[in-house]
Amino acid sequence: MAEVIDIDDPADPRVADFRDLSNADRRPDLPGGKGLVIAEGVVVVQRMLSSRFRPFALLGTARRHEQLAEDLAGVDVPYYRASAEVMARVVGFHLNRGVLAAARRPPQLSAEQELATARTVAVLEGVNDHENIGSIFRNAAGLGADAVLFGDRCSDPLYRRSVRVSMGHVLRVPFAQLPELPGGLDLLRANGFQTVALTPNPAAPTLATAMTGAKVALLLGAEGPGLTEDTMRACDIRARIPMTPGTDSLNVATAAAMAFYERVRTQ
Amino acid sequence: MAEVIDIDDPADPRVADFRDLSNADRRPDLPGGKGLVIAEGVVVVQRMLSSRFRPFALLGTARRHEQLAEDLAGVDVPYYRASAEVMARVVGFHLNRGVLAAARRPPQLSAEQELATARTVAVLEGVNDHENIGSIFRNAAGLGADAVLFGDRCSDPLYRRSVRVSMGHVLRVPFAQLPELPGGLDLLRANGFQTVALTPNPAAPTLATAMTGAKVALLLGAEGPGLTEDTMRACDIRARIPMTPGTDSLNVATAAAMAFYERVRTQ
Repeated sequence: MAEVIDIDDPADPRVADFRDLSNADRRPDLPGGKGLVIAEGVVVVQRMLSSRFRPFALLGTARRHEQLAEDLAGVDVPYYRASAEVMARVVGFHLNRGVLAAARRPPQLSAEQELATARTVAVLEGVNDHENIGSIFRNAAGLGADAVLFGDRCSDPLYRRSVRVSMGHVLRVPFAQLPELPGGLDLLRANGFQTVALTPNPAAPTLATAMTGAKVALLLGAEGPGLTEDTMRACDIRARIPMTPGTDSLNVATAAAMAFYERVRTQ
Repeated sequence: MAEVIDIDDPADPRVADFRDLSNADRRPDLPGGKGLVIAEGVVVVQRMLSSRFRPFALLGTARRHEQLAEDLAGVDVPYYRASAEVMARVVGFHLNRGVLAAARRPPQLSAEQELATARTVAVLEGVNDHENIGSIFRNAAGLGADAVLFGDRCSDPLYRRSVRVSMGHVLRVPFAQLPELPGGLDLLRANGFQTVALTPNPAAPTLATAMTGAKVALLLGAEGPGLTEDTMRACDIRARIPMTPGTDSLNVATAAAMAFYERVRTQ
C-alpha cells in the first residue's frame, strides 16, 4: 500500500525529485538532467506500475489517488498528495493530468536478448523527434511489433514527451541500442531477421511484396533525410509504401504503423 | 511576376494582413478572426500557389523569394520582402520558415459534387484536434483518398496549424461539410458509398474483411469518445484495425492511414 504524505508547502524537500520537471527527465549526462523517467496521468502511471520502470514516488491530487487505489494496493512507495496548485508550483508549470510518477532508469536491455524472441522489430536511425519516437512505441504496442532498436543519432525515448505521446508504451515495449550502423545489422542477420529499409523511392517493391522473412526488421530513418545511404545499401531489400506520386513521404511513425499493419495482416 | 516590395518598418500598413498572425487565421465568426488561410514555408506556399486557395500577398525573406522565383513567375501578387527580424515583429513571434502566403477563403465545395467522382472518402465526426486533422489530410494525399467530409463538431481544417501539419495538403485534398449526422450518411448512400465505421471493438470484422464496396466512406471519430452511437448504428458495417489486446486505439490520423492503405492495397 502506497503511504500517503500530504504536501502543503511547494518547497517541501520530500518532493525535490519533481521540482523543475522540464529538466528532471533529461539524461544525466546533459545539463540539469537527473535522468528520471516521469509518467503523467492515470493511464500512463498505471502502465509504469506494471512495467520494469518501478516508480520510487508519486505526486498527485487526492482525486487521482482514489482513481489509482487498486493499482497502488501492493506498491510500497510514497504518494505525495497535494492540491493542483501546489503541484504546479513544485513542477514549475500547470499539469492537467493530476498525477506524476517518477522512476530511475533501470539497466538497459540487450539487443541480443530481445532479438532472440522477437519476430517484428523497428530499427530507427537518426530519428530525433520525441513525439515521433513516442508515436512509434504506441503504434508498435497497438500493432504487435515486438521491440524497437535504436541505431545512431536517435533521441532519448525516455524523455517526458515521448513517454506521454507513447501513452506509456515506451515503458512496456522493449527497446535496446544496436551497435553502430550499418555494422549493427549483422546482429539482426545473425538472429535470422530480414532487414527491410523503408524508402519513398517509387522504384522499390511495395512493403507487401518485399517483406518475405519469418522475422522482419524494419529500418526507418528520420523524415526528410531518411536512412543513410550506407545503411540502406547494407539492408537485404528496400521497400516502399504505395503512395500517390507528387506527395511527401509519410510521417515516420505513420510509415512504421503501415509496416507493422502489413506484418499483422500477412502473418 | 510577383511585384517585390521591400518592407523595413514592421508597422508598415501594407503588411497589416500578416499582423497578429495567431489570430488572423481564426474563422471570421470568432473574436479577432479574419478567416485568412496562411501557408508557411516554401513547400506549403508552393502547394498553395497551385491550389484553389490563391494567395493575395506573400511576406518573406530575400532568400525565400529566390527559392520561389519559378513558382511566382506567373503570379500577380505582391511579395513583401523583409528581414527575418522585421517579419518576426510583424507577425508577433519568430517564424523559422522564412515565408508566408495569405489567401482568403474561397467558396466551400459541395459534398454532392465531391462524392460524384470519389471512390474513397474519410468522414470525420467530432475530430477537434488541429494536428490530427492536418495529419488526416497529409495521409489522404499520400495514400490516395479522394476527399475529406466533415460531420458535426470538427475543428476548422484551415487553421494555421492544420495547414502546416498537413504539409499544405489541406489546400489540395477537397473537403466539404456533410448535413448533420447520422442523416448526412444518406448522401453517401445515394452516391453508392459503403459506410464503414471504424471502431476499436474486438468483435467487429477487420478492415480488410469489412471494406467490400467499390466506393467506401470511412467514418472516424475523435480519440477517446470515438463515433457517436447514433452514427455508428447508421453505418452499413463496423470495422476494426487488428490490434494487440490491452492497448489503446490508435491515433485517429494513424487509423485513417491504415484504412486508406488497406483501400490502396485491395483496389
